[in-house]
Amino acid sequence: MIRLLLVHESGLLRSALASVIGAEPDIEAAACSWRDARSRARSLQPQVCVVDTDSPAADKAARKGEWGKFVASASGEGGDCGLLVLVNSERPGPLRRAHEARALGYVDKDAPPQRLVEAIRQVAKKERYVDDALGYGFLQAAKIPLTERELGVLSLAADGASIPEIARTLHLSTGTIRNYLAAITRKTGARNRVDAIRISQCEGWV
Amino acid sequence: MIRLLLVHESGLLRSALASVIGAEPDIEAAACSWRDARSRARSLQPQVCVVDTDSPAADKAARKGEWGKFVASASGEGGDCGLLVLVNSERPGPLRRAHEARALGYVDKDAPPQRLVEAIRQVAKKERYVDDALGYGFLQAAKIPLTERELGVLSLAADGASIPEIARTLHLSTGTIRNYLAAITRKTGARNRVDAIRISQCEGWV
Repeated sequence: MIRLLLVHESGLLRSALASVIGAEPDIEAAACSWRDARSRARSLQPQVCVVDTDSPAADKAARKGEWGKFVASASGEGGDCGLLVLVNSERPGPLRRAHEARALGYVDKDAPPQRLVEAIRQVAKKERYVDDALGYGFLQAAKIPLTERELGVLSLAADGASIPEIARTLHLSTGTIRNYLAAITRKTGARNRVDAIRISQCEGWV
Repeated sequence: MIRLLLVHESGLLRSALASVIGAEPDIEAAACSWRDARSRARSLQPQVCVVDTDSPAADKAARKGEWGKFVASASGEGGDCGLLVLVNSERPGPLRRAHEARALGYVDKDAPPQRLVEAIRQVAKKERYVDDALGYGFLQAAKIPLTERELGVLSLAADGASIPEIARTLHLSTGTIRNYLAAITRKTGARNRVDAIRISQCEGWV
Protein backbone atom coordinates (compact mmCIF):
# COMPACT_ATOMS: atom_id res chain seq x y z
CA MET A 1 0.00 0.00 0.00
CA ILE A 2 1.41 3.41 -0.98
CA ARG A 3 0.79 6.13 1.65
CA LEU A 4 0.40 9.44 -0.13
CA LEU A 5 -0.07 13.05 0.99
CA LEU A 6 -1.40 15.60 -1.51
CA VAL A 7 -0.87 19.32 -0.88
CA HIS A 8 -3.16 21.77 -2.66
CA GLU A 9 -4.67 25.05 -1.48
CA SER A 10 -8.24 24.38 -2.66
CA GLY A 11 -10.20 21.98 -0.45
CA LEU A 12 -12.60 21.19 -3.27
CA LEU A 13 -9.94 20.26 -5.80
CA ARG A 14 -7.67 18.37 -3.42
CA SER A 15 -10.57 16.24 -2.13
CA ALA A 16 -11.59 15.42 -5.68
CA LEU A 17 -8.08 14.50 -6.75
CA ALA A 18 -7.44 12.47 -3.58
CA SER A 19 -10.67 10.58 -4.05
CA VAL A 20 -9.85 9.69 -7.66
CA ILE A 21 -6.30 8.59 -6.79
CA GLY A 22 -7.40 6.85 -3.60
CA ALA A 23 -9.79 4.70 -5.64
CA GLU A 24 -6.73 2.79 -6.89
CA PRO A 25 -6.37 -0.45 -4.90
CA ASP A 26 -2.71 0.17 -3.97
CA ILE A 27 -2.90 3.87 -2.98
CA GLU A 28 -4.06 5.42 0.27
CA ALA A 29 -4.45 9.16 -0.35
CA ALA A 30 -4.72 11.96 2.23
CA ALA A 31 -4.86 15.65 1.34
CA CYS A 32 -4.25 18.96 3.10
CA SER A 33 -3.49 22.64 2.56
CA TRP A 34 -0.03 24.25 2.82
CA ARG A 35 -0.91 25.49 6.30
CA ASP A 36 -1.25 21.93 7.60
CA ALA A 37 1.35 20.34 5.33
CA ARG A 38 4.18 19.95 7.83
CA SER A 39 2.12 18.58 10.71
CA ARG A 40 0.23 16.16 8.45
CA ALA A 41 3.49 15.02 6.87
CA ARG A 42 5.00 14.39 10.29
CA SER A 43 2.07 12.31 11.52
CA LEU A 44 1.40 10.43 8.28
CA GLN A 45 4.99 9.74 7.18
CA PRO A 46 3.91 9.26 3.55
CA GLN A 47 6.06 7.47 0.99
CA VAL A 48 5.02 9.97 -1.68
CA CYS A 49 4.17 13.68 -1.39
CA VAL A 50 2.28 15.24 -4.29
CA VAL A 51 2.51 19.03 -4.49
CA ASP A 52 0.77 21.37 -6.91
CA THR A 53 3.52 23.90 -7.67
CA ASP A 54 1.33 26.18 -9.76
CA SER A 55 -0.51 28.37 -7.27
CA PRO A 56 0.06 31.55 -5.26
CA ALA A 57 0.08 29.47 -2.07
CA ALA A 58 2.85 27.21 -3.42
CA ASP A 59 4.85 30.27 -4.57
CA LYS A 60 4.53 31.80 -1.12
CA ALA A 61 5.52 28.55 0.60
CA ALA A 62 8.56 28.34 -1.68
CA ARG A 63 9.64 31.90 -0.86
CA LYS A 64 9.44 31.09 2.84
CA GLY A 65 11.51 27.92 2.43
CA GLU A 66 8.53 25.73 3.39
CA TRP A 67 9.05 23.13 0.65
CA GLY A 68 12.29 21.77 2.04
CA LYS A 69 10.91 21.69 5.59
CA PHE A 70 7.80 19.93 4.38
CA VAL A 71 9.72 17.19 2.58
CA ALA A 72 12.00 16.83 5.59
CA SER A 73 8.95 16.43 7.88
CA ALA A 74 7.50 13.82 5.54
CA SER A 75 10.74 11.89 5.38
CA GLY A 76 11.26 11.86 9.15
CA GLU A 77 14.13 9.77 10.47
CA GLY A 78 13.87 7.18 7.75
CA GLY A 79 14.32 9.89 5.12
CA ASP A 80 12.54 8.15 2.30
CA CYS A 81 9.63 10.30 1.11
CA GLY A 82 9.64 10.96 -2.64
CA LEU A 83 8.45 14.36 -3.88
CA LEU A 84 6.17 14.38 -6.91
CA VAL A 85 5.21 17.75 -8.37
CA LEU A 86 2.31 18.84 -10.55
CA VAL A 87 3.59 21.56 -12.86
CA ASN A 88 2.23 23.99 -15.39
CA SER A 89 4.44 23.58 -18.46
CA GLU A 90 4.13 27.31 -19.14
CA ARG A 91 5.58 28.39 -15.79
CA PRO A 92 9.29 27.51 -15.74
CA GLY A 93 9.94 29.19 -12.36
CA PRO A 94 8.09 26.61 -10.24
CA LEU A 95 9.58 23.82 -12.37
CA ARG A 96 13.10 25.04 -11.59
CA ARG A 97 12.14 25.37 -7.93
CA ALA A 98 10.80 21.79 -7.87
CA HIS A 99 14.05 20.58 -9.40
CA GLU A 100 16.04 22.43 -6.73
CA ALA A 101 13.84 20.75 -4.09
CA ARG A 102 14.99 17.41 -5.61
CA ALA A 103 11.58 16.31 -6.83
CA LEU A 104 11.67 12.75 -8.15
CA GLY A 105 8.46 12.94 -10.19
CA TYR A 106 7.15 15.65 -12.55
CA VAL A 107 3.60 15.50 -13.95
CA ASP A 108 1.92 18.09 -16.19
CA LYS A 109 -1.16 19.65 -14.59
CA ASP A 110 -2.92 19.02 -17.86
CA ALA A 111 -2.24 15.27 -17.84
CA PRO A 112 -5.01 12.68 -17.44
CA PRO A 113 -5.31 11.33 -13.84
CA GLN A 114 -4.01 7.94 -14.96
CA ARG A 115 -0.62 9.48 -15.70
CA LEU A 116 -0.42 10.81 -12.15
CA VAL A 117 -1.23 7.33 -10.83
CA GLU A 118 1.62 5.84 -12.90
CA ALA A 119 3.97 8.53 -11.62
CA ILE A 120 2.96 7.85 -8.01
CA ARG A 121 3.79 4.14 -8.36
CA GLN A 122 7.15 4.99 -9.90
CA VAL A 123 8.10 7.54 -7.23
CA ALA A 124 7.00 5.13 -4.49
CA LYS A 125 9.68 2.77 -5.86
CA LYS A 126 12.20 5.66 -5.62
CA GLU A 127 12.35 5.88 -9.40
CA ARG A 128 12.33 9.11 -11.36
CA TYR A 129 9.21 9.94 -13.42
CA VAL A 130 9.21 12.79 -15.95
CA ASP A 131 6.06 13.49 -17.93
CA ASP A 132 6.85 13.63 -21.67
CA ALA A 133 4.66 16.73 -21.98
CA LEU A 134 7.12 18.72 -19.88
CA GLY A 135 10.08 18.74 -22.26
CA TYR A 136 9.39 22.28 -23.39
CA GLY A 137 8.90 23.45 -19.81
CA PHE A 138 12.32 22.10 -18.82
CA LEU A 139 13.93 23.87 -21.77
CA GLN A 140 12.28 27.10 -20.64
CA ALA A 141 13.36 26.58 -17.04
CA ALA A 142 16.96 26.23 -18.18
CA LYS A 143 16.65 29.48 -20.11
CA ILE A 144 15.56 31.92 -17.38
CA PRO A 145 17.76 34.87 -18.37
CA LEU A 146 18.29 36.29 -14.87
CA THR A 147 20.84 35.37 -12.22
CA GLU A 148 19.75 34.35 -8.71
CA ARG A 149 20.82 37.81 -7.45
CA GLU A 150 18.77 39.55 -10.15
CA LEU A 151 15.75 37.38 -9.34
CA GLY A 152 16.14 38.38 -5.69
CA VAL A 153 16.20 42.11 -6.56
CA LEU A 154 13.23 41.70 -8.90
CA SER A 155 11.25 39.76 -6.36
CA LEU A 156 11.67 42.57 -3.78
CA ALA A 157 10.72 45.18 -6.41
CA ALA A 158 7.64 43.10 -7.29
CA ASP A 159 6.68 43.18 -3.61
CA GLY A 160 6.57 46.98 -3.84
CA ALA A 161 9.92 47.84 -2.23
CA SER A 162 11.58 51.09 -3.34
CA ILE A 163 15.21 51.20 -4.50
CA PRO A 164 16.50 52.40 -1.07
CA GLU A 165 14.49 49.63 0.64
CA ILE A 166 15.89 46.95 -1.68
CA ALA A 167 19.39 48.35 -1.11
CA ARG A 168 18.97 48.17 2.67
CA THR A 169 17.52 44.64 2.57
CA LEU A 170 20.36 43.30 0.43
CA HIS A 171 23.12 45.42 2.04
CA LEU A 172 24.04 47.00 -1.29
CA SER A 173 24.21 50.60 -2.51
CA THR A 174 21.27 52.21 -4.28
CA GLY A 175 23.51 52.65 -7.35
CA THR A 176 24.11 48.89 -7.47
CA ILE A 177 20.36 48.22 -7.22
CA ARG A 178 19.76 50.70 -10.04
CA ASN A 179 22.31 48.83 -12.14
CA TYR A 180 20.64 45.49 -11.37
CA LEU A 181 17.23 46.88 -12.31
CA ALA A 182 18.60 48.31 -15.56
CA ALA A 183 20.17 44.92 -16.39
CA ILE A 184 16.91 43.13 -15.55
CA THR A 185 14.89 45.48 -17.76
CA ARG A 186 17.35 44.99 -20.63
CA LYS A 187 17.61 41.19 -20.27
CA THR A 188 13.84 40.68 -20.09
CA GLY A 189 13.25 42.94 -23.10
CA ALA A 190 10.93 45.08 -20.97
CA ARG A 191 9.96 48.69 -21.53
CA ASN A 192 10.51 49.65 -17.92
CA ARG A 193 10.73 48.26 -14.44
CA VAL A 194 6.99 47.61 -14.03
CA ASP A 195 7.00 45.85 -17.38
CA ALA A 196 9.97 43.71 -16.29
CA ILE A 197 8.01 42.65 -13.20
CA ARG A 198 4.98 41.82 -15.32
CA ILE A 199 7.01 39.77 -17.82
CA SER A 200 8.78 37.87 -15.06
CA GLN A 201 5.51 37.10 -13.31
CA CYS A 202 3.91 35.94 -16.57
CA GLU A 203 6.87 33.68 -17.27
CA GLY A 204 6.68 32.38 -13.73
CA TRP A 205 10.24 33.40 -12.83
CA VAL A 206 9.47 35.26 -9.58
CA MET B 1 -30.51 13.95 -15.25
CA ILE B 2 -28.54 17.21 -14.86
CA ARG B 3 -26.21 17.92 -17.81
CA LEU B 4 -23.21 19.82 -16.50
CA LEU B 5 -20.13 21.38 -18.10
CA LEU B 6 -17.13 22.18 -15.91
CA VAL B 7 -14.51 24.68 -17.12
CA HIS B 8 -11.06 24.57 -15.56
CA GLU B 9 -7.63 25.11 -17.07
CA SER B 10 -5.95 22.04 -15.58
CA GLY B 11 -6.83 18.76 -17.26
CA LEU B 12 -5.82 16.79 -14.19
CA LEU B 13 -7.97 18.73 -11.74
CA ARG B 14 -11.01 19.07 -13.99
CA SER B 15 -11.06 15.34 -14.73
CA ALA B 16 -10.85 14.56 -11.04
CA LEU B 17 -13.62 16.97 -10.09
CA ALA B 18 -15.85 15.83 -12.97
CA SER B 19 -15.38 12.21 -12.01
CA VAL B 20 -16.32 12.87 -8.37
CA ILE B 21 -19.39 14.93 -9.33
CA GLY B 22 -20.35 12.56 -12.14
CA ALA B 23 -20.48 9.71 -9.63
CA GLU B 24 -23.77 11.21 -8.36
CA PRO B 25 -26.69 9.31 -9.87
CA ASP B 26 -28.45 12.45 -11.16
CA ILE B 27 -25.48 14.32 -12.65
CA GLU B 28 -23.77 13.83 -15.99
CA ALA B 29 -20.51 15.81 -15.92
CA ALA B 30 -18.32 16.86 -18.84
CA ALA B 31 -15.21 19.03 -18.49
CA CYS B 32 -13.07 21.21 -20.74
CA SER B 33 -10.55 24.05 -20.80
CA TRP B 34 -11.34 27.72 -21.54
CA ARG B 35 -10.08 27.23 -25.09
CA ASP B 36 -12.81 24.69 -25.84
CA ALA B 37 -15.48 26.18 -23.56
CA ARG B 38 -17.67 27.84 -26.17
CA SER B 39 -17.75 24.97 -28.66
CA ARG B 40 -18.36 22.37 -25.95
CA ALA B 41 -21.13 24.54 -24.46
CA ARG B 42 -22.78 24.87 -27.87
CA SER B 43 -22.77 21.15 -28.56
CA LEU B 44 -23.64 19.98 -25.04
CA GLN B 45 -26.27 22.60 -24.10
CA PRO B 46 -25.73 21.99 -20.37
CA GLN B 47 -28.25 23.02 -17.73
CA VAL B 48 -25.44 24.04 -15.40
CA CYS B 49 -21.99 25.48 -16.16
CA VAL B 50 -19.41 25.32 -13.39
CA VAL B 51 -16.50 27.75 -13.76
CA ASP B 52 -13.42 28.08 -11.59
CA THR B 53 -13.00 31.86 -11.39
CA ASP B 54 -9.73 31.76 -9.50
CA SER B 55 -7.05 31.21 -12.13
CA PRO B 56 -5.00 33.24 -14.60
CA ALA B 57 -6.92 31.58 -17.47
CA ALA B 58 -10.27 32.68 -16.00
CA ASP B 59 -8.94 36.21 -15.47
CA LYS B 60 -7.77 36.34 -19.07
CA ALA B 61 -11.09 35.01 -20.37
CA ALA B 62 -12.91 37.65 -18.31
CA ARG B 63 -10.75 40.47 -19.71
CA LYS B 64 -11.57 39.28 -23.22
CA GLY B 65 -15.32 39.14 -22.51
CA GLU B 66 -15.35 35.35 -22.94
CA TRP B 67 -17.54 34.64 -19.90
CA GLY B 68 -20.68 36.20 -21.31
CA LYS B 69 -20.15 34.56 -24.71
CA PHE B 70 -19.59 31.22 -23.03
CA VAL B 71 -22.80 31.40 -20.98
CA ALA B 72 -24.69 32.57 -24.08
CA SER B 73 -23.35 29.58 -26.06
CA ALA B 74 -24.38 27.22 -23.27
CA SER B 75 -27.86 28.69 -23.07
CA GLY B 76 -28.48 28.56 -26.81
CA GLU B 77 -31.98 29.43 -28.04
CA GLY B 78 -33.67 28.06 -24.92
CA GLY B 79 -31.61 30.42 -22.77
CA ASP B 80 -31.69 28.39 -19.60
CA CYS B 81 -28.16 27.52 -18.53
CA GLY B 82 -27.35 28.46 -14.94
CA LEU B 83 -23.84 29.68 -14.10
CA LEU B 84 -22.24 28.30 -10.96
CA VAL B 85 -18.87 29.71 -9.92
CA LEU B 86 -16.10 28.37 -7.74
CA VAL B 87 -14.52 31.29 -5.95
CA ASN B 88 -11.60 31.98 -3.68
CA SER B 89 -13.02 33.95 -0.75
CA GLU B 90 -9.81 35.96 -0.59
CA ARG B 91 -10.05 37.30 -4.14
CA PRO B 92 -12.98 39.73 -4.35
CA GLY B 93 -12.26 40.76 -7.96
CA PRO B 94 -13.36 37.47 -9.56
CA LEU B 95 -16.33 37.33 -7.16
CA ARG B 96 -17.52 40.75 -8.34
CA ARG B 97 -16.94 39.67 -11.94
CA ALA B 98 -19.02 36.50 -11.42
CA HIS B 99 -21.80 38.59 -9.96
CA GLU B 100 -21.71 40.88 -13.00
CA ALA B 101 -21.94 37.78 -15.23
CA ARG B 102 -25.16 36.94 -13.31
CA ALA B 103 -23.93 33.74 -11.71
CA LEU B 104 -26.72 31.92 -9.88
CA GLY B 105 -24.51 29.75 -7.67
CA TYR B 106 -21.40 30.62 -5.64
CA VAL B 107 -19.28 27.92 -3.99
CA ASP B 108 -16.06 28.43 -2.03
CA LYS B 109 -13.08 26.64 -3.61
CA ASP B 110 -12.30 25.35 -0.16
CA ALA B 111 -15.70 23.68 0.30
CA PRO B 112 -16.12 19.89 0.49
CA PRO B 113 -17.27 18.33 -2.83
CA GLN B 114 -20.69 17.56 -1.34
CA ARG B 115 -21.43 21.26 -1.08
CA LEU B 116 -20.75 21.69 -4.79
CA VAL B 117 -23.14 18.82 -5.53
CA GLU B 118 -25.89 20.53 -3.48
CA ALA B 119 -25.25 23.80 -5.29
CA ILE B 120 -25.45 22.07 -8.68
CA ARG B 121 -28.88 20.61 -7.86
CA GLN B 122 -30.09 24.02 -6.71
CA VAL B 123 -28.83 25.88 -9.78
CA ALA B 124 -30.29 23.19 -12.06
CA LYS B 125 -33.67 24.15 -10.56
CA LYS B 126 -32.88 27.83 -11.38
CA GLU B 127 -32.51 28.62 -7.72
CA ARG B 128 -29.77 30.78 -6.25
CA TYR B 129 -27.12 29.08 -4.09
CA VAL B 130 -24.67 31.09 -2.02
CA ASP B 131 -22.08 29.29 0.06
CA ASP B 132 -22.16 30.52 3.67
CA ALA B 133 -18.37 30.63 3.68
CA LEU B 134 -18.42 33.45 1.13
CA GLY B 135 -19.99 36.17 3.28
CA TYR B 136 -16.66 37.83 3.95
CA GLY B 137 -15.69 37.62 0.29
CA PHE B 138 -18.87 39.41 -0.75
CA LEU B 139 -18.23 42.15 1.80
CA GLN B 140 -14.73 42.55 0.38
CA ALA B 141 -16.02 42.64 -3.19
CA ALA B 142 -18.36 45.46 -2.25
CA LYS B 143 -15.46 47.32 -0.72
CA ILE B 144 -13.00 47.52 -3.63
CA PRO B 145 -11.84 51.11 -3.08
CA LEU B 146 -11.19 51.96 -6.74
CA THR B 147 -13.59 53.20 -9.41
CA GLU B 148 -13.97 51.34 -12.71
CA ARG B 149 -11.84 54.08 -14.40
CA GLU B 150 -9.10 53.72 -11.80
CA LEU B 151 -9.16 49.93 -12.19
CA GLY B 152 -8.77 50.42 -15.95
CA VAL B 153 -5.74 52.71 -15.51
CA LEU B 154 -4.21 50.34 -12.96
CA SER B 155 -4.77 47.34 -15.17
CA LEU B 156 -2.88 49.02 -18.07
CA ALA B 157 -0.08 50.03 -15.68
CA ALA B 158 0.10 46.44 -14.41
CA ASP B 159 0.52 45.32 -18.02
CA GLY B 160 3.65 47.46 -18.19
CA ALA B 161 2.32 50.49 -20.08
CA SER B 162 4.06 53.84 -19.43
CA ILE B 163 2.07 56.96 -18.49
CA PRO B 164 2.08 58.34 -22.09
CA GLU B 165 0.93 54.92 -23.36
CA ILE B 166 -1.92 54.75 -20.85
CA ALA B 167 -2.90 58.33 -21.76
CA ARG B 168 -2.97 57.46 -25.49
CA THR B 169 -4.99 54.27 -24.92
CA LEU B 170 -7.62 56.02 -22.80
CA HIS B 171 -7.59 59.31 -24.77
CA LEU B 172 -6.67 61.32 -21.69
CA SER B 173 -3.79 63.66 -20.89
CA THR B 174 -0.66 62.42 -19.15
CA GLY B 175 -1.47 64.83 -16.28
CA THR B 176 -4.84 63.14 -15.76
CA ILE B 177 -3.20 59.70 -15.72
CA ARG B 178 -0.66 60.94 -13.17
CA ASN B 179 -3.56 62.15 -11.02
CA TYR B 180 -5.31 58.80 -11.32
CA LEU B 181 -2.14 56.95 -10.37
CA ALA B 182 -1.62 59.24 -7.38
CA ALA B 183 -5.22 58.64 -6.27
CA ILE B 184 -4.81 54.87 -6.73
CA THR B 185 -1.61 54.84 -4.69
CA ARG B 186 -3.28 56.85 -1.93
CA LYS B 187 -6.51 54.82 -1.87
CA THR B 188 -4.75 51.46 -1.80
CA GLY B 189 -2.41 52.64 0.98
CA ALA B 190 0.56 51.75 -1.23
CA ARG B 191 4.09 53.09 -0.99
CA ASN B 192 4.35 53.73 -4.72
CA ARG B 193 2.90 52.71 -8.07
CA VAL B 194 4.54 49.28 -8.19
CA ASP B 195 3.31 48.63 -4.68
CA ALA B 196 -0.23 49.68 -5.68
CA ILE B 197 -0.13 47.14 -8.51
CA ARG B 198 1.09 44.45 -6.16
CA ILE B 199 -1.60 45.19 -3.57
CA SER B 200 -4.35 45.21 -6.19
CA GLN B 201 -3.15 41.92 -7.66
CA CYS B 202 -2.96 40.34 -4.21
CA GLU B 203 -6.48 41.50 -3.44
CA GLY B 204 -7.63 40.18 -6.79
CA TRP B 205 -8.93 43.55 -8.03
CA VAL B 206 -7.14 43.58 -11.38
